[in-house]
Amino acid sequence: MNRRTSSHSSHSASAAPRRRSSYATSSTSRRPSALERRLSALTTAEAGDHVDRETAAAEESVAEELAEIKRYEDFTTIDWVQDAARENQRRKARRVERAGFFEREGRLGWRRKVWEGYEAGQGWIVVTLIGIAIGLNAAFLNIVTEWLSDIKLGYCSTAFYLNESFCCWGAENECPEWRPWSTFTPLNYLLYILIASLLAYCSARLVKSYAPYAAGSGISEIKCIIAGFVMKGFLGFTTLLIKTLAMPLAIASGLSVGKEGPSVHYAVCAGNVISRLFDKYRRNAAKTREILSACAAAGVAVAFGSPIGGVLFSLEEMSNYFPLKTMWRSYYCCLVATAVLAAMNPFRTGQLVMFTVRYDRSWHFFELPFYILLGIFGGLYGAFVMKWNLRVQAFRKRYLTQYPILESVLLAFATAVLCYPNMFLRIDMTESMEILFLECEGGHDYDELCDRRNRWSIVLSLLFATCLRTFLVIISYGCKIPAGIFVPSMAIGALFGRMVGILVQALHESFPTSAFFAACEPDVPCITPGTYAFLGAGAALSGIMHITVSVVVIMFELTGALTYILPTMIVVGVTKAVADRCGKGGIADRMIWFNGFPFLDSKEEHVFGVAVAKTMTASPVALIASGMTIKDVERVLKATKFQGFPVVDTAETQTLLGYIGRTELRYALDRAKREQMVRSTAKCFFAPQDGPLTATTPSAAFPSVSFDDMIDVAHVDFSRFVDPTPLAVHPRLPLETVMELFKKLGPRVILVEHRGRLTGLVTVKDCLKFQLRSEALENPRHDENLRRGQDILWKYIRVAGEWFGEKVGGLSGGRLRLSSAGGSPPSSAGLGDPERVGHEQADARHSTVIEDVELEDRRAMV
Amino acid sequence: MNRRTSSHSSHSASAAPRRRSSYATSSTSRRPSALERRLSALTTAEAGDHVDRETAAAEESVAEELAEIKRYEDFTTIDWVQDAARENQRRKARRVERAGFFEREGRLGWRRKVWEGYEAGQGWIVVTLIGIAIGLNAAFLNIVTEWLSDIKLGYCSTAFYLNESFCCWGAENECPEWRPWSTFTPLNYLLYILIASLLAYCSARLVKSYAPYAAGSGISEIKCIIAGFVMKGFLGFTTLLIKTLAMPLAIASGLSVGKEGPSVHYAVCAGNVISRLFDKYRRNAAKTREILSACAAAGVAVAFGSPIGGVLFSLEEMSNYFPLKTMWRSYYCCLVATAVLAAMNPFRTGQLVMFTVRYDRSWHFFELPFYILLGIFGGLYGAFVMKWNLRVQAFRKRYLTQYPILESVLLAFATAVLCYPNMFLRIDMTESMEILFLECEGGHDYDELCDRRNRWSIVLSLLFATCLRTFLVIISYGCKIPAGIFVPSMAIGALFGRMVGILVQALHESFPTSAFFAACEPDVPCITPGTYAFLGAGAALSGIMHITVSVVVIMFELTGALTYILPTMIVVGVTKAVADRCGKGGIADRMIWFNGFPFLDSKEEHVFGVAVAKTMTASPVALIASGMTIKDVERVLKATKFQGFPVVDTAETQTLLGYIGRTELRYALDRAKREQMVRSTAKCFFAPQDGPLTATTPSAAFPSVSFDDMIDVAHVDFSRFVDPTPLAVHPRLPLETVMELFKKLGPRVILVEHRGRLTGLVTVKDCLKFQLRSEALENPRHDENLRRGQDILWKYIRVAGEWFGEKVGGLSGGRLRLSSAGGSPPSSAGLGDPERVGHEQADARHSTVIEDVELEDRRAMV
Repeated sequence: MNRRTSSHSSHSASAAPRRRSSYATSSTSRRPSALERRLSALTTAEAGDHVDRETAAAEESVAEELAEIKRYEDFTTIDWVQDAARENQRRKARRVERAGFFEREGRLGWRRKVWEGYEAGQGWIVVTLIGIAIGLNAAFLNIVTEWLSDIKLGYCSTAFYLNESFCCWGAENECPEWRPWSTFTPLNYLLYILIASLLAYCSARLVKSYAPYAAGSGISEIKCIIAGFVMKGFLGFTTLLIKTLAMPLAIASGLSVGKEGPSVHYAVCAGNVISRLFDKYRRNAAKTREILSACAAAGVAVAFGSPIGGVLFSLEEMSNYFPLKTMWRSYYCCLVATAVLAAMNPFRTGQLVMFTVRYDRSWHFFELPFYILLGIFGGLYGAFVMKWNLRVQAFRKRYLTQYPILESVLLAFATAVLCYPNMFLRIDMTESMEILFLECEGGHDYDELCDRRNRWSIVLSLLFATCLRTFLVIISYGCKIPAGIFVPSMAIGALFGRMVGILVQALHESFPTSAFFAACEPDVPCITPGTYAFLGAGAALSGIMHITVSVVVIMFELTGALTYILPTMIVVGVTKAVADRCGKGGIADRMIWFNGFPFLDSKEEHVFGVAVAKTMTASPVALIASGMTIKDVERVLKATKFQGFPVVDTAETQTLLGYIGRTELRYALDRAKREQMVRSTAKCFFAPQDGPLTATTPSAAFPSVSFDDMIDVAHVDFSRFVDPTPLAVHPRLPLETVMELFKKLGPRVILVEHRGRLTGLVTVKDCLKFQLRSEALENPRHDENLRRGQDILWKYIRVAGEWFGEKVGGLSGGRLRLSSAGGSPPSSAGLGDPERVGHEQADARHSTVIEDVELEDRRAMV
Repeated sequence: MNRRTSSHSSHSASAAPRRRSSYATSSTSRRPSALERRLSALTTAEAGDHVDRETAAAEESVAEELAEIKRYEDFTTIDWVQDAARENQRRKARRVERAGFFEREGRLGWRRKVWEGYEAGQGWIVVTLIGIAIGLNAAFLNIVTEWLSDIKLGYCSTAFYLNESFCCWGAENECPEWRPWSTFTPLNYLLYILIASLLAYCSARLVKSYAPYAAGSGISEIKCIIAGFVMKGFLGFTTLLIKTLAMPLAIASGLSVGKEGPSVHYAVCAGNVISRLFDKYRRNAAKTREILSACAAAGVAVAFGSPIGGVLFSLEEMSNYFPLKTMWRSYYCCLVATAVLAAMNPFRTGQLVMFTVRYDRSWHFFELPFYILLGIFGGLYGAFVMKWNLRVQAFRKRYLTQYPILESVLLAFATAVLCYPNMFLRIDMTESMEILFLECEGGHDYDELCDRRNRWSIVLSLLFATCLRTFLVIISYGCKIPAGIFVPSMAIGALFGRMVGILVQALHESFPTSAFFAACEPDVPCITPGTYAFLGAGAALSGIMHITVSVVVIMFELTGALTYILPTMIVVGVTKAVADRCGKGGIADRMIWFNGFPFLDSKEEHVFGVAVAKTMTASPVALIASGMTIKDVERVLKATKFQGFPVVDTAETQTLLGYIGRTELRYALDRAKREQMVRSTAKCFFAPQDGPLTATTPSAAFPSVSFDDMIDVAHVDFSRFVDPTPLAVHPRLPLETVMELFKKLGPRVILVEHRGRLTGLVTVKDCLKFQLRSEALENPRHDENLRRGQDILWKYIRVAGEWFGEKVGGLSGGRLRLSSAGGSPPSSAGLGDPERVGHEQADARHSTVIEDVELEDRRAMV
């Protein structure tokens, strides 16, 4: 305090006495009056709020303008600490305001009650609306997707808008109303291929023309957004619309893509669009993230018909920080969305999911080895698909960004050509899972799946389907249409599991009396291949996403197989153990890493054993508390791209006084110039006031005064925009602790201060870069060969493509142009480019020096 | 750095050049060499570690001694930040050590692999062992409890050690092997009462004599322990043993207590006992907490036969911070424990739980209003029971601590007398739930529960049972035997639910054709009263514990009623909403509050709107970096009870240099005196070295050098025990942010520093006290009447007790002494007493001034 520079604001003078009474009690605190003084200070603070009430409106408008600006700063991160502080300010202000507003009505007037009810219930109203929207959307999508999927195989002669199951409603085995396109199989094949390609074309066209962000699954981006990253438009209304329209097309096209990832994306879009209509969420980015977590949960809930599974998925996969309040919001959102879906009853079965099976038989302990086998398969499947899919993605990013539509159409074409002949691949993936999960007893049979005579041909068919589907998933996931990877993975797991189940069944039937099968009762079916399919599906899902509890609950809610909860847990446990040995993180985490988003994974634990001083930006560009002119400040703003600047008292002593964000500074400058016609030689003051330690601790995001009283011609006081209490740590604090601070509190920046003196500045990106650098030092990678291989592959593809393009162009007379070479779309995969994300302080310097370990350079490393 | 006092250690001199290269690059950092220098510093640091290797052994032994001491500091909290830092140090050291150890074998020798495998797998080994122990214990308990419960009603004539269901195994309706004690009902009644009282006596006797901590449920204490509180003996082997023995006795005594809370307690005890055998966990209290979370999950998992429910319970209720790694540990622990339990198969039904029901019918949307009614009941039940149970607890604490055994016996006696006549209360609570959950169709019937003719008598019986059981739960929960509240609550909910269900059924049968019941198919049962019982059980459980997702999953795993997941969610949702309106926190949170444990609830959100300066201890007792003599330091230690002391450079400037814990200081002093015969006038140095910014940032808990080289006769250097990087914040930082720091990072203390100068110190208790104070200011309470009423009640009880005691004493000739007036047992409820918990800095001062809002004074406020 004794270092305070000369008082240049009328506020600090009046504040001085109060300040002393509150924390400058160093020498006298042992006197009994200390407490009374503190209590009276509390009262004073309360009284002070009443006085401040008049300025509240002005303050709010400034805060709202700033929030609005920040909302549209693309590719930055939000500051959770400041946002929380702001929300607290707002609540406190609201309370005071309310007290005044209702004074005349007594403490419990009905208006006050209604008002309070609305205030408290706003969050619930928002979540209810969102839940209803998501449920309705899901019902619509379910109906459309089924119809589109069936249309590839035939049509309903009674009413063209019915899908196969509705067309044949109530019919026994035979169903003459549903007709294949023709009686001639090759023609059916051809139509199947054509319709599939057409659907894929429509989907890709929609995405490319209207909402490039609607491509892909979106889960990794949403993960980053929930963690605080800002991506303008990713959750916009257009994206919502296009994703909703393009998703059924993509799935019906027969591509090996699922609806769960996109479902999460459209749900979060819906949440974002709706919550924006409400005051509370328009202003507070951190609060909005709570809602988005809940939406992600509801997205999974409606996709799988698994409300609790959705909550757990959001908890386990989507959110790095999941307070209980968010859990409760998610619970409610899932409940509403699922209830709406159930009320709409899209399948007309009273079930939320297509497949509900009941297993009549329980499992036996001797089946454990086979369960473990399924678990191992799941882990290996996940590792394999992730490795190769990332390579395909790198290839796609390098060569295919120009041809998104062509790529999708070709993929759909190839998928249709390859899949039609196989009975498990031809039909919809969900449908095929339903068939694979079934018990053989009880009259269900599909194409003699249960027939023992052609068991070996079935096994071969399943094996072939497993391999082909895996290959298709690897090349399809990530193409520029809405595409998830959940259901394809589950379908693959189910194929493999059923195969194992049939083999075990064959084993049992060959040696029914062996000691190994002693637990089986004689003359009764003992092995249920359907349960193996079920467990395999869980294993593959867990292997690709690296989630455990959610998978168990989802599988459980999908089928209601209560007795199989222990086997499911064992299988998923083995998968998780295998997957963790093969590499860290599920596909969403890998995609984040691949795209170079600034995301600190809370799952990873690092031991660097270094102090924060090692990774910080030493002596960052700082503003001097007093003495700089407007011109100086503008020069600093122009010369640097940093997100904010520490404020120090003088250039020599470097005593840290506060921190001001770039946005706030820019806004304050502009406003000062616009309103007051300040000369560019006017002096700027940034020293935050060591003012009253009352309730209204001013934070940078909530300037507590309007401009009118603080500008004369030669002085501009920006102190209200300076955050006087930025988080600051000692330079020798372990880096791990700093990363914990980032993970758990979520500040945008942490300053490094040594005995009051500013010595550095750390951001999340600094930490990530250090992490990457030390990883790169430990495991140097050589990927020249890989790159060369990709070049050769691309050459062949080009040649083939040109030849084919000519043919098609010639045949259709130039009307059918599959590729549109003009202008590359803004791909979501390109977000990691340094010129877009690299705003944080210290970027400029690092990226020039060590390009080989730069964040965005990973596409070559897979 | 320029403030460093004269160098008195040989280390700091050698470290100076390296220091400069790392973060003192203020003026030259823009030169391109900055990065190379940093990278080379990294290499230097690595090299430096090799040199330090020799001292590693000495360091480790000091660290271990300190950890051992800290383990037994009762009623303190652990420091998560320091513990994490220490663990990182240890890992780093291990890595270096390993590198040296395996140098000669090449990088991938088999010994290295085995070693690494053991290191990495230690956690899993521990969890496996614990899981097995918990599973075996649970199986044992299940068998013993069932036998003891049945013995009250009769015995097995073929083999006395069989319970009723095993005795009658395979028998149709009639079971002559199982005989009631006599054919004369009043004699049976008497025997029932006598056996119940005897069982309660044994249970209470065991608890009182051997392990007072085994009383009660233990969930609230475990919550605090997992959050970092240290309670010596609460998780010890004796507690484990006594809880395991006394629990079946308590439950079989027919008291309205459940086994789930105690089950969590013994599981956590088992985890603590087993993990202590392993190095990694003996030394690291924070790591041990991870294991304890997993154990709590496994405890619930085996109690309910619900592995996923256990994981979620641990997540939702037990842990304030639950990283995904802990979730995965919990998952695994639950899996092992449940699998062991399943393999033991205690019920011989292949089921994990006593009641698995399958509902053949689905629900209808018109039933929603009744579901909502059940939800409201759950919420009100929870609020009512909590309010009155806390009053009973306050009464018990004030008057009954002297008579724990008498109290339990009297309760069991009264329970037996009251419950025997009612058919739902006579039998075990689990059994009664099983009966209430059943569908009427399919041949199940118990005492004409499904008979339509005496519907109204059944309804009255259910209503009476609901009220009586609620009353019994209120007076029983908290008595000095192992006692949980889960199952009693569920049983009450089931009673109420069944009643509602029967009423709805009656309604439907009276108006079968009304529009309201239009969804019912004609001539088929439409309403299933069993499902109402099921939903009521969930509602009551949710109402008392304030948990949501876990309840849904537990109910689901208990019964496998997949189709009822939406109704369950709705009911639980309504309950939660009602419960939140009636008061905050479930019974465990209330008990924590009641007992005054230092626990920051992460569920609560507070808006204080004040700066941390308002709640901190201003100008705490600090040590001067140099100049104090041994005698001075000892005087400070004797004069204060604070847990630690900041270190400042001089008394005038108060520049903060570090923080030293009381334990470390005590240890260092004792060791210095023991080993070196230091004079009491020797000067002490506390200034932490601003030494090399390398990997080995010394933390207080991990002094990095032995004493031999730093003591001469006149100087003792304690700097190695000083934490040079305590968390320090600005005095104007909002209190909410500081509380977030405590909640999410878990330091023991946060220092307040203004521009390098120490101005204060905050602990969790300071925050809690401020919170309590502001709550007390807002809602002043008057409880004089309550207290007077309790006094009167106690007077009557005494009179009745004395009269009764004389009678019994006279009848038995003085041999039967129910009360033991000598010496009050150390009740776990007495932990909040100021002289035991009040060690933290600033306590002494506050508690003298404002006694009316003191933490431990809440027993009068309920």
